[in-house]
Amino acid sequence: MQRLTGNAVIGQSGGPTAAINASLAGVISALIKSDRVGRVYGMRNGIEGFLREDLIDISEAFSGECSEEKLELLSHTPASALGSCRKKLPKPADDPAFFEGLIDLFKKYDIRYFFYIGGNDSMDTVAKLTEYTKVHDYEIRVVGVPKTIDNDLCGTDHTPGFGSSAKYIATTVQEIIRDCAVYTVPAVTIVEIMGRDAGWLTVSSGLGRIVNGFAPDMIYLPERAFSLDSFLEDVKCALEKHPNVVIAVSEGLRDKNGVYVGEGTQSGVADVFGHKYLSGTGKALELFVKEKLGCKVRSVELNISQRCAAHIASAADISEAFGVGAAAARAAVDGATGCMMAIERAEGKDYSVSFVPKDISGIANAVRTVPDSFINEEGNNVTDEALEYLLPLIKGEIDLKWRDGLPEIFVF
Amino acid sequence: MQRLTGNAVIGQSGGPTAAINASLAGVISALIKSDRVGRVYGMRNGIEGFLREDLIDISEAFSGECSEEKLELLSHTPASALGSCRKKLPKPADDPAFFEGLIDLFKKYDIRYFFYIGGNDSMDTVAKLTEYTKVHDYEIRVVGVPKTIDNDLCGTDHTPGFGSSAKYIATTVQEIIRDCAVYTVPAVTIVEIMGRDAGWLTVSSGLGRIVNGFAPDMIYLPERAFSLDSFLEDVKCALEKHPNVVIAVSEGLRDKNGVYVGEGTQSGVADVFGHKYLSGTGKALELFVKEKLGCKVRSVELNISQRCAAHIASAADISEAFGVGAAAARAAVDGATGCMMAIERAEGKDYSVSFVPKDISGIANAVRTVPDSFINEEGNNVTDEALEYLLPLIKGEIDLKWRDGLPEIFVF
Repeated sequence: MQRLTGNAVIGQSGGPTAAINASLAGVISALIKSDRVGRVYGMRNGIEGFLREDLIDISEAFSGECSEEKLELLSHTPASALGSCRKKLPKPADDPAFFEGLIDLFKKYDIRYFFYIGGNDSMDTVAKLTEYTKVHDYEIRVVGVPKTIDNDLCGTDHTPGFGSSAKYIATTVQEIIRDCAVYTVPAVTIVEIMGRDAGWLTVSSGLGRIVNGFAPDMIYLPERAFSLDSFLEDVKCALEKHPNVVIAVSEGLRDKNGVYVGEGTQSGVADVFGHKYLSGTGKALELFVKEKLGCKVRSVELNISQRCAAHIASAADISEAFGVGAAAARAAVDGATGCMMAIERAEGKDYSVSFVPKDISGIANAVRTVPDSFINEEGNNVTDEALEYLLPLIKGEIDLKWRDGLPEIFVF
Repeated sequence: MQRLTGNAVIGQSGGPTAAINASLAGVISALIKSDRVGRVYGMRNGIEGFLREDLIDISEAFSGECSEEKLELLSHTPASALGSCRKKLPKPADDPAFFEGLIDLFKKYDIRYFFYIGGNDSMDTVAKLTEYTKVHDYEIRVVGVPKTIDNDLCGTDHTPGFGSSAKYIATTVQEIIRDCAVYTVPAVTIVEIMGRDAGWLTVSSGLGRIVNGFAPDMIYLPERAFSLDSFLEDVKCALEKHPNVVIAVSEGLRDKNGVYVGEGTQSGVADVFGHKYLSGTGKALELFVKEKLGCKVRSVELNISQRCAAHIASAADISEAFGVGAAAARAAVDGATGCMMAIERAEGKDYSVSFVPKDISGIANAVRTVPDSFINEEGNNVTDEALEYLLPLIKGEIDLKWRDGLPEIFVF
C-alpha cells in the first residue's frame, strides 16, 4: 500500500438517479475523514466542468457543524447535485493532448484522487483516463462509482439507483392497477417503462405479484423479439379473464428484425454515444390495440419520475449507494485505481452485499441484460426467480425531511 | 330531528382519487357506531352495481377485531375500493319508472340512508334522487360526499382528493426541475397536468415557489385564453435567464376561440356526460417549441398517478376526507338529506376547517374555476395568494403500512 497525499475531485455524469447523490455523500463522507486527502473538489457538470475549472469546494461546504445532517439531506436529494454532462472522451491514442490538458489541471489543483459516479459511459471515461495515466508519470488514483437506473452495468450484482427506480415503478404500477380496476368496461392500459436494451426496470413492474398479487397481466422486455401477433393474442386472452388489463412494456421493444416498436414515433436523433432516443412504444401499441380490438385503450409513460422520484426511494438502495461511494473512496486511499467499486451479493437465502473493486477494463461499454431464466417461456412475463432476486433491492423506506408538505432538497 | 332506523348503502362514483377511500372509511366509521343504522351495504361499481343488486356487506367486513386498523388501511388505499361507474341518471320527470325501480330496491333492502361519494356528476345523481324522493312517500336520506382531484366542485372550500394530488404534483414537479437542472444544454420541459376546465391542479405545480424556490418558470391555466405567440415569447425570455426551462400546462388549455391546444391530438370521443377526452396539450406544445426554437424539448404527462399516487398522499387531505365522510354520515342520522357535506375554511391566518351540509341543488353541474386573483396579469403564472391558499392542503405525510417495500392495500 503506497501512501499518496493530495486533493480529490468528484464528478457525476450521465442521467441522474434518485441515489446518485447518496453515492456522492458516501465518497465525501470517507474523503473528509481521511488524513491523506486535503481538499475535496466537485466538478460542476462532470468532466466538462472540470475542463472549464468550474469547481465546487466540497470540503468547505461540508465543514463545520451539521455536516452529518447535510450528508443525509444530500443522500435524499434526487438528480445530480454537482450537475452532469454527456461528454465522451477521445481515445488516449487518438488525442494525447486532451489527456495532457487534464494532467495539467490535476497538477494545478494537486489532484491525486479522481472519482467519477455514473453509468456505462462514465465508466468509459474512467477506463480511458486509467489507460492514459497508467503509462504516464503523474500518479493519480482513478475510481468509478456505479450508478444507473437501468441496472445494465457489468461487473456488479446490481447498480445503485436501480432499486429506487424499481420501488417507484412497482408502487406506481400497483396504484395504476387499482385505478384501472374500478370500472367494469373492458379496457387495456399499457405502461411504458424505461430501458433501451435491458429490461430490468420493466421486470420490476411485476414485483407486486410476489408481495400482494398486484402485477401487470403481461410484461414484455427488449431481451425477447416482440411479435405484434402474439401480443394481440395475449391481450385477447387476458381480456377474456377480466376487463381491466394492464400491460408493462419496455421502451426498447423491437421485432425479430431489430425494428423498434416505437420506430415510427421516435425522434431519430442519436446522442454523442450513438444511442437513439426512443419514445412512443406504449403509444404505438395503444393505437395498435385500439385499431384491432376497438376497446378502450390508453398508454402511460412513467417518464422522468423513474429516475428522480426520490420521495419514494428504496432505503436498501440509498444505503448501498452511500456504501459503494464510501468504499470507493477508502479503496482509493488504500491504493486502488483503474477500477469500479462493485456490489457483490452474498450467496444464500438472506440478502447481504459487500463492495469489491473490479478492474475497469472489462466493465465499460458492455451491457448486462436480463438473463433467460428471468423471462417466462412465452416471453410475455417474468419468472418468480426474477422477482425474488430483485425484491431485496426495493425494501425499506427512507426517513425524508419535509418542509410545508414538500421534501427538502440539498443544493450546492 | 326525526328518528329514522334502517340500513345504509354507500357508493363511489366517477374517477378515483387517493382520498376517496378515506371518505368511505369515514362514512363507515360513523355508521357502524350509530344505533339507527342496521346493516351497511356497499354498492359495487356505484349506482350501476346497486341496480344489479351487486352489494357488499360492509358491516360484516368491518365487524370484529382490527376494524380500526382496517379502516386506516382503507383510508390509505388508492382508487375506489367499491369500484366506480359513470352512469348518468335520467331526469325524474323523464323516467319516473327508473326511480320507482330504485325505490323498490331501497324497500327490498330496507335502505334509509344513501351516501354517494363523488364529484360533479355524482352530485348530479344525489340531486336527482333527492328531487324524486322529496315528492314520494319513501323516506330516505340522501347525502353526497365530495371527491375530486380537480377541486372544481361548488359549495366547498376545496374537495377531498385534491390535496393529495396537489402534493404529488408539487413534489414530482420539484423532482423534475432538479432532474432538468443537471445539464447545461438549453432545454425546455413541458409538464402536462390534469384539468379540463379548472386549473387548480396546475396551480399546485407552483407550490415549491413559496417553500423552497423550486417551481416552473411558467404556469398556464385553462382560465385564461392561451396564445401561442405570447407563449413563444415567454419561452424565449425564460431561456435567456437560464438553460433549463420547465413549464406547467393544464390539459384543458384553449385559445381565445375556445379551440383546445391539444385539439389535433385529442380522441374526439365524448363521455356520457358530454366531456371530451383530452390529451396531447403538452405534446402539441413540445412540437411547437421544437419547430420554432429548435432546442431540446420534451413533454411529460403526469397522467393517472395524479389521481392514484396514494404513496404520497397529503395527511391533511386524508384526514379531511375521512372527516367529511364521517360528518356526512352523522348529519344524515341526525336528519340531513338532499345535501352535500362541504368543507368550510375558518377565517384568519391559521388554517382550520369545519364540515357543513350544503343544499345539493346549487352544487351539481357547476364548475368552480381558479379565481382571477390567483393568476398573474400576464396569464403565465400564479400569484403568491394562490399558493398560500393551497399550501395547507398538501401538509403532512401519512403513516403508510409497507410490506416488502410496497404499500399495503385494502381490498374488499
